[in-house]
Amino acid sequence: MRGIIPQKIKGFRDITPLQNQLHQHIIEKAGQVYKNYGFEQWDTPVLEYADCLGKYMPDADSAAEGVYSFRNPEQEPVLDEKGNRVADTDGNFLMENHFLSLRYDLTAPLSRHYAEKLWNSSFSGQISSFKPPLFRRYQYGTVYRFEAKLDPGRFREFRQIDFDTVGTSDIAADAEICMILSDALNAIGLDKSSYVIKVNNRKILSGLFHELNITGEKEAAVTRIIDKLDKIGIDGVKAELANGRKDPSGAFIQGINLDINSIDKLIGFLSINGISQPRGAMIDLLSNEFSNNEIYAAGLKELQEIDSLLNSLGYGSDGIVFDPSLVRGMAYYTGPIFEVQSLLSYTDAKGNKRGVGSICGGGRYDGLVKRLLGVDVPATGASIGVDRLAEILTLSEISKIEYSGPVLITVFDNSLMTEYQKIARELRANNIPVQVYYGVQKGLKKQLAYADSIKSPIAILLGEDELKAGVVTIRNLNLGTRMSGDIQNKDEWKAKAQQQVPLAGLISAVLDILKS
Amino acid sequence: MRGIIPQKIKGFRDITPLQNQLHQHIIEKAGQVYKNYGFEQWDTPVLEYADCLGKYMPDADSAAEGVYSFRNPEQEPVLDEKGNRVADTDGNFLMENHFLSLRYDLTAPLSRHYAEKLWNSSFSGQISSFKPPLFRRYQYGTVYRFEAKLDPGRFREFRQIDFDTVGTSDIAADAEICMILSDALNAIGLDKSSYVIKVNNRKILSGLFHELNITGEKEAAVTRIIDKLDKIGIDGVKAELANGRKDPSGAFIQGINLDINSIDKLIGFLSINGISQPRGAMIDLLSNEFSNNEIYAAGLKELQEIDSLLNSLGYGSDGIVFDPSLVRGMAYYTGPIFEVQSLLSYTDAKGNKRGVGSICGGGRYDGLVKRLLGVDVPATGASIGVDRLAEILTLSEISKIEYSGPVLITVFDNSLMTEYQKIARELRANNIPVQVYYGVQKGLKKQLAYADSIKSPIAILLGEDELKAGVVTIRNLNLGTRMSGDIQNKDEWKAKAQQQVPLAGLISAVLDILKS
Repeated sequence: MRGIIPQKIKGFRDITPLQNQLHQHIIEKAGQVYKNYGFEQWDTPVLEYADCLGKYMPDADSAAEGVYSFRNPEQEPVLDEKGNRVADTDGNFLMENHFLSLRYDLTAPLSRHYAEKLWNSSFSGQISSFKPPLFRRYQYGTVYRFEAKLDPGRFREFRQIDFDTVGTSDIAADAEICMILSDALNAIGLDKSSYVIKVNNRKILSGLFHELNITGEKEAAVTRIIDKLDKIGIDGVKAELANGRKDPSGAFIQGINLDINSIDKLIGFLSINGISQPRGAMIDLLSNEFSNNEIYAAGLKELQEIDSLLNSLGYGSDGIVFDPSLVRGMAYYTGPIFEVQSLLSYTDAKGNKRGVGSICGGGRYDGLVKRLLGVDVPATGASIGVDRLAEILTLSEISKIEYSGPVLITVFDNSLMTEYQKIARELRANNIPVQVYYGVQKGLKKQLAYADSIKSPIAILLGEDELKAGVVTIRNLNLGTRMSGDIQNKDEWKAKAQQQVPLAGLISAVLDILKS
Repeated sequence: MRGIIPQKIKGFRDITPLQNQLHQHIIEKAGQVYKNYGFEQWDTPVLEYADCLGKYMPDADSAAEGVYSFRNPEQEPVLDEKGNRVADTDGNFLMENHFLSLRYDLTAPLSRHYAEKLWNSSFSGQISSFKPPLFRRYQYGTVYRFEAKLDPGRFREFRQIDFDTVGTSDIAADAEICMILSDALNAIGLDKSSYVIKVNNRKILSGLFHELNITGEKEAAVTRIIDKLDKIGIDGVKAELANGRKDPSGAFIQGINLDINSIDKLIGFLSINGISQPRGAMIDLLSNEFSNNEIYAAGLKELQEIDSLLNSLGYGSDGIVFDPSLVRGMAYYTGPIFEVQSLLSYTDAKGNKRGVGSICGGGRYDGLVKRLLGVDVPATGASIGVDRLAEILTLSEISKIEYSGPVLITVFDNSLMTEYQKIARELRANNIPVQVYYGVQKGLKKQLAYADSIKSPIAILLGEDELKAGVVTIRNLNLGTRMSGDIQNKDEWKAKAQQQVPLAGLISAVLDILKS
C-alpha cells in the first residue's frame, strides 16, 4: 500500500509570488505588443481530443510521444470524416471513449479552434471558396510535455504567450514575427546584446535533403538529429548521422548510418555560421549552395523578402540573423522558422556553466489546419517561453522588479481584534496591502518571523496601554534588517527602526516608510 | 474508423476577446483586494497526484467521482506513509503508475502545497511543535470537473480566483472572508442589491444531524440532498429525504427513506428564511432550536462572533446574512461556510427565466491538510467563480467595458507593403493597436468585412496615387455603422464616415477618431 506523501508530480512546480510577478510583467508587456500588432486574445481549453491536436512533438519516438493522454471517462459516438455517426453491421451506433490530451503547445489547439469555426460554418454554406478567412489571435497559457528525461531547468508544465496569423501566405506576416519578438523582448526589458533572433526556412532544409536523397522517415530522423546541434555539438550530430555515439552517461545512441557523402555535405552546410554575419552576406553564401533546387530556391527567396522588409523598417542584422542550422523540433513547420536564443549563461547547482538556450520559437505551419479541414489554410506564428524568460530576468538581474509583501498588524491581545481590523481597514482604504496576524503560533517573535517570511516592509504593534494613550508602534522591517548587522546595542537598534506615532498619524507614517 | 472532426470536448469552451477582457477585469480587481488583505500569489500545477487531492467532490456517487483522472505514463516507486520505498518479499522495490488528476478546485492543491513544505522541512527537524505556521495565498486558475450531466451555463473547465489562510483557527479569519468577498465584488462593479453573501456553519448542521441521529453515510447523503435545495426546492428535498421523486425528465431519483420525525424537523429548520432578516434576529431564532447540543452551540457562537466583528467594521445585514439551509457541496468543510448568491436572473435560449445562482463559495476546512500530514492544520478560504461572474457582467449590463479591436490597414497593392508597415509602425509607436491586412481573400469588401469581424474602429486605405500625393484615406467604421441606417445616399455616407488627410497628419486624425 502506498502512503499519501504530499508532493508535486516530477517535473511540475509551484510558482512563488516573485515568479508570478515576473510572469505577470512578461505577459503584460508581451501582450501589449501583440495587441498593438492587432492580435486579439482568444483562449482555448487545456484539454482537447488527442486526434484534434495531432502528433507533432519532436520526441515522437518516446513511449507516450511526449504528450499526457488518457481515455475520456465519457463514451461518445464514433464519427466518420464527414461528422456522421458510424454504425455496426446491425445498425447500432458505435460508441467509444476517445483519447484526450493535455495541450503540448498553443498552436495545435488554435488550429482546432480555427478549423472548428470553419467546419461549423461550412454546414450553412459559408465556405464559398477555398480562400480561408484571416484570423489573428494571441493566447497565454500553460502547456504540458511528458518528457521522460528532464534536463535541468526543463519542466513538464510551462507557460507560453503565443501569437498566430491564420489564413495568410503573405511573407510579410513572417517578417512581422521577427519584429514582434524583437519589440516584445525590448518591452520586457531584455538588453539587445543578450539575445539573438535566428531565422531559417524549412524549405531550404527540404531542398537540401531532396538534393541528398534524404526523404520520408530518414528526413524526419535527420531533422531530429540536427535539432540537437545546440546540445550535442557538430561532432555529436556527425556521429549520430553516421553509426552512433556514447553520451556522457555512457548510454549508446544508435546512429542512422547515412552515407559519407551526405554527411559531409550536411556538416558543411551546418557549419556555415549565421550568427556572426549580416543577413545579406548569409543570403549570398546560401545562394552558392543548392540554389538550383526549386524548393531550396523558393525558401531562399522568402528569406530575401524577409530581409528586405526588416531592413526597410529598421530591424538590422545586429538582432535578427539567418542561421541555416536552425530546424525547430515541431514536425508541423513548413516555411520560415524562428528561434530566439539567449546569449546569457549561468552557473548551475553543480557549478557547471550552462547556456540559457532558446526562449522563443515559431514558424510557418501551412498544413496544420488542412489536416483537420481538408482545405489549404496557410498560417504562421510564434511564442515566448515565459518561465525561462522569467529565469533570465532573475539570473541576469536585468529586472528591476522588487518584491514587497504586505504590512503586518501583530496581535498582542485577541480582545483588541476589532481595533486591529479597523486599522487594517483604514490602511487598505489607502491602497496599502496589510494583514492582521491570525496564526496559531502566538508569540511576538513568531509573528515577526512570519513578517520576515512574507517580506513585510512594516510591522504594526498595538497593546491595550497604547490604545488607551492613543498611540501605535511602527517597526520598519527593511531598515531593521539593513541595520541589524551594524548596530550592537539593541536599544539603539530599536530607537532607529521603531517609532511610536499617534493613531491619527498612522497612515502618513506608514506611507512615509513605504516611499523611502 | 473515426474521422478527425475539429471540435472541443463537450463542456469545454473557447474564450472570446470580450470574455477575456471581462475575466481580466475580475482578476485584476479581485486580485488587488486579495493583495490588500495581505494574500500573496502562489500558483500550483493543473495536474496533481490523485491521492494528494483526495475525494471531496459533491457528486462522489458518479463513476469517475467528478474528477478527470488517469494513470501516470511514468512508473514511480511505491512509498509507505513515511515516504520510504516499499519492497516485495524478495526485496525488490515496487513500482507503480500512480493516478494523476486534473485539479477540481484550488483548495486541495493548496493543501498539498502547504503540506509538502512542512513535510520536507520536518526532515530537518523544523516542526518543533504541532503549531502550524501561518500561510496566506491567493491563486487564479482553471479547474476541472467531470460532470456527467451538464446543466445550462455549467462547464467542465472553469476559472476560480481563490484566497486561503492556512494555519489559523481565529474566527476573525472567517469573518474577514465576508469582508473580502464584499470588497472584491464591489471593486468588480457589482451593485450591492444584485447579490447576497450567505453564511452558515457546518457545526450547526452537524449538531442538528447529531440530534436527529443522522450519522456517517447517512449524514453525507442528507447533506448532498440539502445542497440541492436551490435547484429542486423544499418539496424536492422533502421527497428525496423520504422515498424519492420523479425529476422533470421522468427519471426516478431514489429517496433515502429517513424517518418522518427527522424529515419534519429538517424541513422545519431549512424553512427558516435567512435572507430576509437581520443576522441578529437569525441568531435569536437559531438559539431557540438545538442549542443544547454542544456542536450546534459552538457553531452558533462562531456565527455570533462573525456577526459582532462584521457589525463593528460596518458590514451590515443588507449584504451579508446567515442562512441555515446553506451546506456547500465540498465534503471537506468543517466550520463556517460561505456562498454568494446572485439575485439576478436571465432568460435562456429556450425562453425560460433562470436564476444565475452561486458566484462565490468557501468555508473552513480544518481536516484537509491533516489528511496529508497527520498534524492538525486549521484553515479557511473562499473563491470567486470567474466565468459566471463574467456572464453576470454581460447579462446585467453592469459592465461599462466596451470591446474595441485594432485599426486595420487595408492592402491595395502588395508592392506598397513597406509603406503599410511604416504607417503601422508609427501608429504603434503611439500605442495604437493596428494590423496590416495579410489575408488571402484580397478584395476591399472582404477586407472591410474582416475589419468588422474584429471590431476595428478605423480602416486606413492607401493606393499608389494617394501615396504620390502624400495623402491617406481614413474610414471611421463605428460612425459608418451607426450612420448606415439613416443615410440613403452612398456618397453622403462616404463623405461623413471617410476623410482624406495628409500622411503627416495621420496619427492625430486617428487619435481624434479613437477619442470621440
